[in-house]
Amino acid sequence: MVRKMKVSEIAKLFNLEIKNLKEDIEITSVSSLENSKEGSITFVADKKHLKDAVNTKASAILTFEYIEGLDIPQLIAKDPKSIFYKLIDILYKEEEKKSQISKTAILGKNVKLGENVYIGDYVVIEDNVKVGNNTKIYPFTYIGQNTKIGDNVILYPRVSIYKDTVIGNNVIIHSGAVIASDGFGYYQENGEHKKIKHIGKVIIEDNVEIGANTTIDRAMLDETIVKEGTKIDNLVMLGHNVVIGKNTILVSQVGIAGSSKVGNNCILAGQVGVADHINITDNVIITAKSGVGKNIEKSGIYGSGFNAVEWNRWKKIMLYIYKLPELIKKLSS
Amino acid sequence: MVRKMKVSEIAKLFNLEIKNLKEDIEITSVSSLENSKEGSITFVADKKHLKDAVNTKASAILTFEYIEGLDIPQLIAKDPKSIFYKLIDILYKEEEKKSQISKTAILGKNVKLGENVYIGDYVVIEDNVKVGNNTKIYPFTYIGQNTKIGDNVILYPRVSIYKDTVIGNNVIIHSGAVIASDGFGYYQENGEHKKIKHIGKVIIEDNVEIGANTTIDRAMLDETIVKEGTKIDNLVMLGHNVVIGKNTILVSQVGIAGSSKVGNNCILAGQVGVADHINITDNVIITAKSGVGKNIEKSGIYGSGFNAVEWNRWKKIMLYIYKLPELIKKLSS
Amino acid sequence: MVRKMKVSEIAKLFNLEIKNLKEDIEITSVSSLENSKEGSITFVADKKHLKDAVNTKASAILTFEYIEGLDIPQLIAKDPKSIFYKLIDILYKEEEKKSQISKTAILGKNVKLGENVYIGDYVVIEDNVKVGNNTKIYPFTYIGQNTKIGDNVILYPRVSIYKDTVIGNNVIIHSGAVIASDGFGYYQENGEHKKIKHIGKVIIEDNVEIGANTTIDRAMLDETIVKEGTKIDNLVMLGHNVVIGKNTILVSQVGIAGSSKVGNNCILAGQVGVADHINITDNVIITAKSGVGKNIEKSGIYGSGFNAVEWNRWKKIMLYIYKLPELIKKLSS
Repeated sequence: MVRKMKVSEIAKLFNLEIKNLKEDIEITSVSSLENSKEGSITFVADKKHLKDAVNTKASAILTFEYIEGLDIPQLIAKDPKSIFYKLIDILYKEEEKKSQISKTAILGKNVKLGENVYIGDYVVIEDNVKVGNNTKIYPFTYIGQNTKIGDNVILYPRVSIYKDTVIGNNVIIHSGAVIASDGFGYYQENGEHKKIKHIGKVIIEDNVEIGANTTIDRAMLDETIVKEGTKIDNLVMLGHNVVIGKNTILVSQVGIAGSSKVGNNCILAGQVGVADHINITDNVIITAKSGVGKNIEKSGIYGSGFNAVEWNRWKKIMLYIYKLPELIKKLSS
Repeated sequence: MVRKMKVSEIAKLFNLEIKNLKEDIEITSVSSLENSKEGSITFVADKKHLKDAVNTKASAILTFEYIEGLDIPQLIAKDPKSIFYKLIDILYKEEEKKSQISKTAILGKNVKLGENVYIGDYVVIEDNVKVGNNTKIYPFTYIGQNTKIGDNVILYPRVSIYKDTVIGNNVIIHSGAVIASDGFGYYQENGEHKKIKHIGKVIIEDNVEIGANTTIDRAMLDETIVKEGTKIDNLVMLGHNVVIGKNTILVSQVGIAGSSKVGNNCILAGQVGVADHINITDNVIITAKSGVGKNIEKSGIYGSGFNAVEWNRWKKIMLYIYKLPELIKKLSS
Repeated sequence: MVRKMKVSEIAKLFNLEIKNLKEDIEITSVSSLENSKEGSITFVADKKHLKDAVNTKASAILTFEYIEGLDIPQLIAKDPKSIFYKLIDILYKEEEKKSQISKTAILGKNVKLGENVYIGDYVVIEDNVKVGNNTKIYPFTYIGQNTKIGDNVILYPRVSIYKDTVIGNNVIIHSGAVIASDGFGYYQENGEHKKIKHIGKVIIEDNVEIGANTTIDRAMLDETIVKEGTKIDNLVMLGHNVVIGKNTILVSQVGIAGSSKVGNNCILAGQVGVADHINITDNVIITAKSGVGKNIEKSGIYGSGFNAVEWNRWKKIMLYIYKLPELIKKLSS
């Protein structure tokens, strides 16, 4: 923790009412209800956890309502969870990498670096790349030619960005992600698969976060686009020419095939697959493990996943499912 | 674009009939129907898109039939799509990495490099490795000892190849792929999992392409093999001792467990899983998200995936499915 | 192979009875039944493969019972498979990387290295890192600050470990794995997703193996933990605050969402998905491709995956499934 604050200071900062403030102690850490300890501040956000809250060892609590029988300072907040997260941002203001261009970084011709950038050891940046202000590029990251990277971007170690890519401001890309590798496209000739050259590119708009080992392919022509504010988890795959709308959430191991479009404010839960050339409108939630093979034109929740049951039971169910057409026919006659 | 061609030159090159050639303009780009612009050539390959073609802003079009009411030069081709792809190859002949062995590349003992190779910055090649002619190895790629790499191979940045691997000619491996890491094999002793040492290897035959962040494990004994002309998308997993036939397509996020064999000319769509020790014959298509738990001995299309429907509907369907044995029994009595 | 042994030496080492020892030949390789050759020793572990064993070209065999009609030395073992694996460990005692701190490795301030370590070329270790004895760190691996790595650890090329991580003894992490990247957590504000700072960490206990391109996210608060002896395959995803018990097996492409707990001695087969905040007790097997959306409180085998059938058949089955509620209702009336 970088900064310490008194309980009264926290209350003042977020304009919160304090109850039980007997001693205005200094907060030295934050904690979950489960692992709270002296000196820490914790939070409770719903009635379900009030019981745990009463037994907390924390020295202060952010809470949605006054908790009877809990004799530590209580800060009453409408949304204690958000306040807690904001408080972490303030208390744990990370020691950021200092502005530096490491001697072992290799910069191509005509590379333009903004102010206050950190270019880590063993970074390779090819020709004609522009990097914005306050951007941090960690070791072993590779940036292909003609790429443009915005301000306040963080590229963690071992990110690969192929050529011609456009990365907006405030983008975070985690380790191992690969941006703008060739799309998976071939044409047939004499029974062989011939590679289609991919001359399109990838655009990542502002405030996007991309998880570890996620892959986003370049367009064949035109652009693969991830729009503003969208957050992508680890091990996600976006095919060539995919367009993801604004403020959308793609959870881990989601795969979206070529040329499909996902709208704004959608949530695709873990391991969802979307076929190619599909359109999903705005405000759609797809539940975990579902497949999307048809356009979704109406906002709402969709799914096709199953939930594991005892294997002997499931085997029996499957037997019936595999015979379903005949079973129904027989019963209908 | 590297090269410009007149419409008549393109027609001549591919031996195509031209209609509407009033002015023999120079083509300066290629474009999709959707984003066509002046100076570009586009294509239309089916009747469904003829309407869009009539409104194109392109300056020339490759088409499967003459389009009435479209007053730009039309090049009539049997397969305009393939011609379009071939034209891209010609016009966008990439400025390739020049032959060069970067000073920061670290080569082990007895490394033999072919002619005209590019060995990028911060490449590490261990002892007894052979690299063929015209092969390009981008930064941060690691090649383990006793590995043999063919001619005209491209290893993009951050490829890992463990020792003893054999890579054929004209192979492309994208960033983040890991070839020949240990297979996932243990034996039990005193309730613990003991590692089985994997002394087999991986063979990647000619003309194979391997996508970003894909992993291919080395065999326990013998070999994991990907045969000639097979194309593998991103984030695919091939277990130890897997054998993939010729000209097969493995779409993103496919997983194939240990010792399974997939035939020639197969297509495994996105997120398909194949259990261990399975044989899939030639010319088999597995639809997206399907599981393969039994041998497939007859060519054809197979599947077990579902398509998302409204969640309330799906929950109702699931309730029936989970009770299916009893429901059928009751109806039968 | 590094070491050669006579058949009698092998028998003596593992205390096995020998049959048919006419000539005490020297074993120069190990082989599968399928690809056996002169000079090799092979094994047969069950009746199903006895037929293949009779035709083996190997020069000796480890077998669970005497094989009639096979005229090579036979070593009778209760568990010939385990003996075979142990023998490989002895015969193929790998030429390990020698103790060395490469000149191109970059070590931060206050980095403490144990004895006999190998730090490969282009390794980057940040400040305040401790590395145990006999640990091997291959090229392009990145270790964030305040990380502690145990003895006898192997970090293959291109592993990323973010700051504050704790890695136990005898841990193996394969190429491309990313440990302790930020968890996927946001809070909502004015319709935007705001990043929750993740100040927790990751603990990997002793004897854990982690596959290629697997990702394990750091906790928001507290810890993401993988306990002793657990083995994780390639392309697996563990979300923030996940806890995996001891001696558990996570097969390739498994995904476990935030805060879920998996018990000891479990097996999650390929492509299994576990929702967030789920508890799975000890000794649970989840079959391939299943989804787990509810707690599993009783040991046993669970599943919800399907097995591909002919596509026309499956399409018919799906039609019935999608109409199941109405079909049953109609039949019930």
